[in-house]
Amino acid sequence: MYTRTLSKPDGRALRLYSRRPISDTIASPPSSPEGAPANSHMRWHPLRSEWVAYAGHRQARTFLPPAEHNPLAPSNDPDRPSELPVGDYDVAVFDNLFPTFSENATAQPPEIVETRPAKGACEVVVFTQDPSQSLGRLPLSQIELIFEVWADRYVDLGRRDDVRYVMPFENRGVEVGVTLHHPHGQIYAYPFVPPIPAVELEAQRAYRQAHGCGLLERLMADEVADGRRILYLSEQAIAVVPVCARYAYEVWIAPRRPATSVADLTSHERCEMARALKTILLKFDRLWGQAFPYVMVVHQAPTDGHDHPEAHLYMAFYPPYRMRGRLKYLAGSELGAGAFTADTLPEAKAAELRAVEVTLD
Amino acid sequence: MYTRTLSKPDGRALRLYSRRPISDTIASPPSSPEGAPANSHMRWHPLRSEWVAYAGHRQARTFLPPAEHNPLAPSNDPDRPSELPVGDYDVAVFDNLFPTFSENATAQPPEIVETRPAKGACEVVVFTQDPSQSLGRLPLSQIELIFEVWADRYVDLGRRDDVRYVMPFENRGVEVGVTLHHPHGQIYAYPFVPPIPAVELEAQRAYRQAHGCGLLERLMADEVADGRRILYLSEQAIAVVPVCARYAYEVWIAPRRPATSVADLTSHERCEMARALKTILLKFDRLWGQAFPYVMVVHQAPTDGHDHPEAHLYMAFYPPYRMRGRLKYLAGSELGAGAFTADTLPEAKAAELRAVEVTLD
Repeated sequence: MYTRTLSKPDGRALRLYSRRPISDTIASPPSSPEGAPANSHMRWHPLRSEWVAYAGHRQARTFLPPAEHNPLAPSNDPDRPSELPVGDYDVAVFDNLFPTFSENATAQPPEIVETRPAKGACEVVVFTQDPSQSLGRLPLSQIELIFEVWADRYVDLGRRDDVRYVMPFENRGVEVGVTLHHPHGQIYAYPFVPPIPAVELEAQRAYRQAHGCGLLERLMADEVADGRRILYLSEQAIAVVPVCARYAYEVWIAPRRPATSVADLTSHERCEMARALKTILLKFDRLWGQAFPYVMVVHQAPTDGHDHPEAHLYMAFYPPYRMRGRLKYLAGSELGAGAFTADTLPEAKAAELRAVEVTLD
Repeated sequence: MYTRTLSKPDGRALRLYSRRPISDTIASPPSSPEGAPANSHMRWHPLRSEWVAYAGHRQARTFLPPAEHNPLAPSNDPDRPSELPVGDYDVAVFDNLFPTFSENATAQPPEIVETRPAKGACEVVVFTQDPSQSLGRLPLSQIELIFEVWADRYVDLGRRDDVRYVMPFENRGVEVGVTLHHPHGQIYAYPFVPPIPAVELEAQRAYRQAHGCGLLERLMADEVADGRRILYLSEQAIAVVPVCARYAYEVWIAPRRPATSVADLTSHERCEMARALKTILLKFDRLWGQAFPYVMVVHQAPTDGHDHPEAHLYMAFYPPYRMRGRLKYLAGSELGAGAFTADTLPEAKAAELRAVEVTLD
């Protein structure tokens, strides 16, 4: 993997990644879409014992622009501002123009609860230069490269003192609020270990202490033995509708060895994770013959300065549909109690997805 | 309050509530809309350490029926099946035709994670016989009656061995997935203390132990002293956009005395809670001159057989809009990390709602 780091006119970083050497002649685009001063802060929610981040400047962010104003389509034309320059590279990562978390956040006036500057980082990961593609339709080699990019960002951001958890994710589809259709994901680098990973890591820590092996490793071994919910299986990687799926079409993809993060994957595991990922994304899109929306989140070890042998990398997909044409709304029970109620059994949804045939290149 | 309990032809309970004596001549409607056998189960999610409930029979549930098939409009006509009989009563509560949790749930085949029958109850609370009304437009006396109904259900359901947490809630608007527009709420009686109340009660318990007073009581006192986010204030009740709001228009309504549940409210407090509630709902609907969608959830003490002096009743509103015409989508950060990112400051949203003038009868 080759990489080059540029600086945008407004000071934001732009990182280019490629399988081939990147030409020195590629420069940052001459102008950027217009942003707003980023100065977010966090407030402590004393009842839920969690941080809430406030970024007032985000109200103005780009909302489903027409194709000719796609800020992720490479352009060197000053009249068509873009985040990305024209040139030969495969993947690009840049600092979000409307970041919720930012290294530059400064202290705010006190409130009646504890406040802190919303330090950290928000990055955009552009999966391809081609706006008509999707993550799942990219060649396997490009998907592998994206895993390498995530690993690079995990290590680089994780080194920072103000970053305790690095989370790559992708929101896909207007159903989950996507504002730009060009294939891209995001990375949030939090200044704290967020509530959901914190709960999961605690369960994993307790299990490892009690049983001497990994919780997810064990659960995946049980899934393999059961077999009904498996969507992809090789010696290195597994994809499954988990037995305890909260969303109808929830899928988890994990390395079978408990790699703690994307940076901990071997080259062989990365290839197999890419194959599993492409398999799932093609199954999703072929299920109803249409682009299948989802929220995808990478769960991995915190970068809080401690060892996390209990962590086991996995990617989780949370699709909003519970059946064709019917969304699952999160309402009273899910939002108010945190108790998920599912209309369908994981076995039945796994059977639907297992029946969708896909062939990789 | 007068009350009468009837039994539907299919065995489900129907409870009528009124300010006036209820005639003996009111009988359960001769036929009910068609349901499905309710036999849900729960599976343990070992990573999140929480129960997920599966109710396959719910896929078939009623979805935005035309007005003439509104199953909540009283009818004694066998050709127009209804859940409610014609007659003089104010509020009705009946067992949900498609319950996620049910007293009759039985053991299911084992899975690779622990499973349990989804015991408990799901009830529907019909706020008025008039389909064109809304909770906020009901007379104060009717809203007070609804608080009494919630208290009755809290005590009655909470007595059951299979019920550890009673949660009244209302989902309002198609934006949060509502399938019936007739004004109604629901009550879920869980066989466990759900994750969100569990976290909040633990924070309240620790605070009370450390400071000798209630966490929410203290936070509300600080809100009163600050003043910027207060929407309603009397000696008995408060409504506020909390300093740590996660949703743009989030509002909490609480008794100022730390009543532990709806059943613990004095008559005077119930009146004042009703006034605060009506004030907020009228402000919501007048803000943009349209029915304002929300998820409303009552947070209160568990019914798990233990004392909960740390609990402090409050109603929380989670509206899906972040500004006029723009929904807040829960995506990567909220669903994957549990970390809320808000586009607006609670002070700004409180100012919008404070500017909306309403007068109560």
